[in-house]
Amino acid sequence: MGGDRITALGGARAMSTFDGLWTAIADVGRDGTTGGYRRPVWGDAEQTLREWFVGCAQERGLAVETDRNGNLWAWWLPPGWTGDPRGALVTGSHLDSVPDGGAFDGPLGVVSSFAAVDALRAEGHVPQRPLGIVAFADEEGARFGVACVGSQLSTGALGPDRALGLRDADGRSLAEVLTAAGRDPAALGRDPRLAERVGLFVELHVEQGRALDRLGAPVAVASSIWPHGRWRLDFTGEANHAGATLIADRHDPMLPYAATVGSARQRAVQHGAVATFGKVSVAPNGANAIASGVHAVLDARAPSTAVLEALTADLFADAARHAAAEGTSVAVHTESVSPVVEFPSGPRGRIRAVLGDIPMLPTAAGHDAGVLSAVVPTAMVFVRNPTGVSHSPAEWAERRDCLAGVDALTAVLRDGTTA
Amino acid sequence: MGGDRITALGGARAMSTFDGLWTAIADVGRDGTTGGYRRPVWGDAEQTLREWFVGCAQERGLAVETDRNGNLWAWWLPPGWTGDPRGALVTGSHLDSVPDGGAFDGPLGVVSSFAAVDALRAEGHVPQRPLGIVAFADEEGARFGVACVGSQLSTGALGPDRALGLRDADGRSLAEVLTAAGRDPAALGRDPRLAERVGLFVELHVEQGRALDRLGAPVAVASSIWPHGRWRLDFTGEANHAGATLIADRHDPMLPYAATVGSARQRAVQHGAVATFGKVSVAPNGANAIASGVHAVLDARAPSTAVLEALTADLFADAARHAAAEGTSVAVHTESVSPVVEFPSGPRGRIRAVLGDIPMLPTAAGHDAGVLSAVVPTAMVFVRNPTGVSHSPAEWAERRDCLAGVDALTAVLRDGTTA
Repeated sequence: MGGDRITALGGARAMSTFDGLWTAIADVGRDGTTGGYRRPVWGDAEQTLREWFVGCAQERGLAVETDRNGNLWAWWLPPGWTGDPRGALVTGSHLDSVPDGGAFDGPLGVVSSFAAVDALRAEGHVPQRPLGIVAFADEEGARFGVACVGSQLSTGALGPDRALGLRDADGRSLAEVLTAAGRDPAALGRDPRLAERVGLFVELHVEQGRALDRLGAPVAVASSIWPHGRWRLDFTGEANHAGATLIADRHDPMLPYAATVGSARQRAVQHGAVATFGKVSVAPNGANAIASGVHAVLDARAPSTAVLEALTADLFADAARHAAAEGTSVAVHTESVSPVVEFPSGPRGRIRAVLGDIPMLPTAAGHDAGVLSAVVPTAMVFVRNPTGVSHSPAEWAERRDCLAGVDALTAVLRDGTTA
Repeated sequence: MGGDRITALGGARAMSTFDGLWTAIADVGRDGTTGGYRRPVWGDAEQTLREWFVGCAQERGLAVETDRNGNLWAWWLPPGWTGDPRGALVTGSHLDSVPDGGAFDGPLGVVSSFAAVDALRAEGHVPQRPLGIVAFADEEGARFGVACVGSQLSTGALGPDRALGLRDADGRSLAEVLTAAGRDPAALGRDPRLAERVGLFVELHVEQGRALDRLGAPVAVASSIWPHGRWRLDFTGEANHAGATLIADRHDPMLPYAATVGSARQRAVQHGAVATFGKVSVAPNGANAIASGVHAVLDARAPSTAVLEALTADLFADAARHAAAEGTSVAVHTESVSPVVEFPSGPRGRIRAVLGDIPMLPTAAGHDAGVLSAVVPTAMVFVRNPTGVSHSPAEWAERRDCLAGVDALTAVLRDGTTA
């Protein structure tokens, strides 16, 4: 249903604008072969989603802006409000995706926010404080290798110099890509208005595991985000002929890399954590040449910072031992480490009070809400994912659960409390 | 020294034209950072080497031609010879390289052939049969994934339809690349003149191991080429979020790939063979996504076909077991399998008689001489490589050993025997 179907009955599930909003972007950046989404930041598909966001805001008479870091904001201000929003209750998420990602990770939070605003407008709600909808830029970090670039720039966690020098797989820097997209790279930096503007940020997100499916509940509120980090491991050996080089003469970096993949699994199980090698490049990557180098990215997350540190210390010692056994070397570079985020109990408790006694879950996935929590109060609402799969075309949420998420956001926005 | 330095004293090592020929191509396709060579077939660097070959032939008054498959030939015909060469004694090798390859693999054989012809001309030699110098196209297969394309097309081992459909990493087919290079793709195919034209092909090549270094000898003659093959292993799992997916819920194809790398090493040692994974691609290759697929190329070689078959049977069973343990699957595709090549004892013995009792070595590297052996008699001469390294910038041969190789070719051509 489109926005023109909003009636006095709006707010009832059957009348939600969710379906129309969802359908409008269902084909944007979708790969016809895999069914997955390719929405890297500042690419054509993501630009189309940005235009859609602006259009949605304008159709609803919301003031829309793109901040210095490329984050999109739409504002519903109380009657008579003048000047900048202050102490706003903001909902939203992000629009970009990993390569071949799912439909829900990111866009579900943005679509649900517009649908919640529509529900409130349909019931004649008058906001007592500014309400906002936000879409943060480049949450996934799929293009430039660093996650939550838009929110990290705004909080100051990521400096503009480092951000502008990041390069995508084609070797283009963020500075070049921003310029090509008509943005001003020099504008990037901490957003000093953030703390004053945002009273509470509530991010709605598809669950990226099966906990709600196992609990039989459609939505949950987040308790914490596990600490996590990314490290680049450069295994260096000696390129040589794949046929003519005796085993005894080999210094093949593929061997210690492979052994380290096995160790990562063992160490993750041992520490009750997760560790993943999902991104690898090999040099020179010739079928008949022993590699000179294997460059791999480790993603590791754990219930506490202490456990994460123990896991990585063990694993990097394993990697060094594997490298030495083959007469090769390994260098470890820390790309990012995010501390644990404990969502504040006040907003979390208030949301549970508004929504009923819904489950409370930790998550091992990073989110803009985690980044923003360094500067403003934040909370998260999760929507059940029956496959438990995310970052994949198999990611899923049933329509009835999406509508339960819209109802949850609607209730939170109607309540209007930020403390 | 250039060709203009040839004097009546030519043939003495100090007067060899080798240095000038070698220096002329030393910078072609060389990467300034790694020091390695990038000379993929039909690329700019390889085209420059083709022009250099034609120039070398023309300077020496040799008849030069490019055959239907892009192989270059230069002919020194006996006085009064008319018509096509027949029963020729041909030397040479190839000009293309793997990515970041060494200077010697290929060009050493071509340069040494021209230097040997210069030495014979300088001593006033008059050939009794046609002598030829050849540079086969795309020996390495680095660009299109199939090795020895030029020689395989000419012998009929590779059909033109399959060859023309091969694609490089940029997705360009060989047909497109040939057209862009001014060649006629429709001309590709078996060369029916080959068997009549070539009485014996002697390929001089840098050794791709340390056997001659250990033996303390500058040159050797080849006994055989190990059978070898390439297989693509496609490990398929389930893409998912690298943080939020419990270990128990994972179907990560990186795990069985890594275990298979370890098994390949174990099986190679067990069977007295070699097995290498040097080329890998990961989908979607995102830092925070469990991979959906890992696609890897196995290069395996063994002293006999029976051993190669036993090695691969064991290894593919290992791979299937590793894949099943993670709830993933693996599919194995045979890309190429080359049988053992035993070089004929007649030419091999004659070369040893001409050169003295030089060592005789098997090799695990494929060569155009191995491909041609299906149609015409072939032999190989190896030049000592003190590093034992090949397909790498560390590949090396001392000048005095290169000159020993030129002397060897000169003696073989002077002798003129093809049986």
